[in-house]
Amino acid sequence: MPTLGDLGELEVLRRLTATLRGGAGVLVGAGDDAAVLELPVGRDLVATVDAFVEGRHYLPEWITPEECGARLAAANLSDLAAMAAAPRWGLFSLGVRAGHEVDDLLALERGLARALEASGAALVGGNLTAVDGPEWLSLSLLGAVERARVWTRRGARPGDGIALTGAPGRAGAALRLVRARGAAARSPEWRPLLDAWLRPASRVAVAQALAGAGAVTAAIDVSDGLAGDLGRLCEASAVGAELDESAWPEDATLERAASALGLPLDELRLGPSDDYELILAVEAGRRDACAAAAGASGVPLSFVGTFTDAPGTLELRGPRGLRPIAAVGFDHFRRSG
Amino acid sequence: MPTLGDLGELEVLRRLTATLRGGAGVLVGAGDDAAVLELPVGRDLVATVDAFVEGRHYLPEWITPEECGARLAAANLSDLAAMAAAPRWGLFSLGVRAGHEVDDLLALERGLARALEASGAALVGGNLTAVDGPEWLSLSLLGAVERARVWTRRGARPGDGIALTGAPGRAGAALRLVRARGAAARSPEWRPLLDAWLRPASRVAVAQALAGAGAVTAAIDVSDGLAGDLGRLCEASAVGAELDESAWPEDATLERAASALGLPLDELRLGPSDDYELILAVEAGRRDACAAAAGASGVPLSFVGTFTDAPGTLELRGPRGLRPIAAVGFDHFRRSG
Repeated sequence: MPTLGDLGELEVLRRLTATLRGGAGVLVGAGDDAAVLELPVGRDLVATVDAFVEGRHYLPEWITPEECGARLAAANLSDLAAMAAAPRWGLFSLGVRAGHEVDDLLALERGLARALEASGAALVGGNLTAVDGPEWLSLSLLGAVERARVWTRRGARPGDGIALTGAPGRAGAALRLVRARGAAARSPEWRPLLDAWLRPASRVAVAQALAGAGAVTAAIDVSDGLAGDLGRLCEASAVGAELDESAWPEDATLERAASALGLPLDELRLGPSDDYELILAVEAGRRDACAAAAGASGVPLSFVGTFTDAPGTLELRGPRGLRPIAAVGFDHFRRSG
Repeated sequence: MPTLGDLGELEVLRRLTATLRGGAGVLVGAGDDAAVLELPVGRDLVATVDAFVEGRHYLPEWITPEECGARLAAANLSDLAAMAAAPRWGLFSLGVRAGHEVDDLLALERGLARALEASGAALVGGNLTAVDGPEWLSLSLLGAVERARVWTRRGARPGDGIALTGAPGRAGAALRLVRARGAAARSPEWRPLLDAWLRPASRVAVAQALAGAGAVTAAIDVSDGLAGDLGRLCEASAVGAELDESAWPEDATLERAASALGLPLDELRLGPSDDYELILAVEAGRRDACAAAAGASGVPLSFVGTFTDAPGTLELRGPRGLRPIAAVGFDHFRRSG
């Protein structure tokens, strides 16, 4: 299998570019100094960037190149979903070792491009460079949104419901299992958690459906962990949050993982985890309409609490009353984070 | 001086974000899941990405953090200049070590943001992650262009003039001097070359002026080296190129560098060099108009040859007639490249 060093930069770039198909609004795609793109009339541009570093954001022995590309797409798609934007165009920048096999790199790009395409976006450019140390992958993703429909982190009001897509906490639980158990984490009983970690679903379609319902007042995606990201939304909206343990979606696999790891279930639900699910603030009277819109998209939506008028206060209501939650997510610079 | 590891990711992100000012068309800037941007009516979007890796694209002992940020901006601004686009918004993705001093990181961002601002663009978002190995910096830059005015690499016709801004080759000569001479390359006699390498000028303004003149049929920026990049433009336009040694802009410093390095002057002029100058194809009858437009922008424009109807053929006319040129630029995966 030839490596990048065997074929050289130009030939590898040629192969990476040759497989790209154009997309909607692509006037000039990859292969010139820049891409030229036509934004639909009446839309604003939405732009985000997210990066993965080998050994930190992905573990090569646990994820295939194609899955890794798709997961990088999911991380960025999730940011656009959290703004209610329709994904359109991606720019891929990566640093890989000369010993990287060209076929693996093409598989990575294929996974990325297919995941983008499934959400309506196309790769339109990129940059390839060599590194000696850990490899890294950075994706910038551009989307379009009607101005009246865009969601931000500001806008949640006391009394709005706190809604979650899917079951946050699973990705972080998988990582903890992998660290604690090694290869034993490959057991079928943990498969739902490993899938959440390695193959996160895109929440773009459900976000579009919910944007149409017009009842969401603020949104953020869960890329660090529920408590950390909810805390950020609360800070931006100047509200507090009261979560209700009894309203939490049942997740038998997560409960088993908590037992197996000897951890409180809440720590898995609320702690560091990059699930790429959405936290939404929903107008009090519109919960049913939102649940119906999400259900029609095939995505479970759970109402797990209410925003409050106590800025900076995150609390969880359990059988023994209210207790405070620390808004802690990943910190890549502090190893204890 | 505190490091990123001392302050932690959130505090560093807060400081990096706090210094950013908004810019034209920025509806939501850094600090949400994504930026929301308003493209001027009637404009297409132009998007590029370029990355630097420590030890490969920049040598920390030769460049200050602020210069390094400005140089990354210049590399991306150059791509937009080569499309005749007006730079608008940047997304900055970077991987830095936990031991990196926070003040140095802020200086890097300041250099980047100021260089973008000087060309009409603003930083609107980013991503920060930790790395253990070489640090890396990736910038995505978005701009706006009238559809009728965009330049691409296609479009050069036989008979069009080959125009250059500035004096390509200087940046590569500086790097060769630094490798050959070490600290002695800091001598004032090499300062013009080191400046070209460490503090490349933006060609955005001259590109805008030339786009107004309407005589440019194709363009590319010199990011790998004159022969390599000219070869790419020729390939895209299905033309050849004949360069004329006698028409070359005089560059006494480059000539001294060639002597000092024991290299043919042509190798410095045409070989690997990331000058971020522009190569332009100009309609035969419009050379004077273009030279005047460039001159009014304060940028020297030299006509160094003519595109020909021999696709794939790059030749240099010297005192002893025509000789072929190899279209070789940097290859970051092959150390000999």
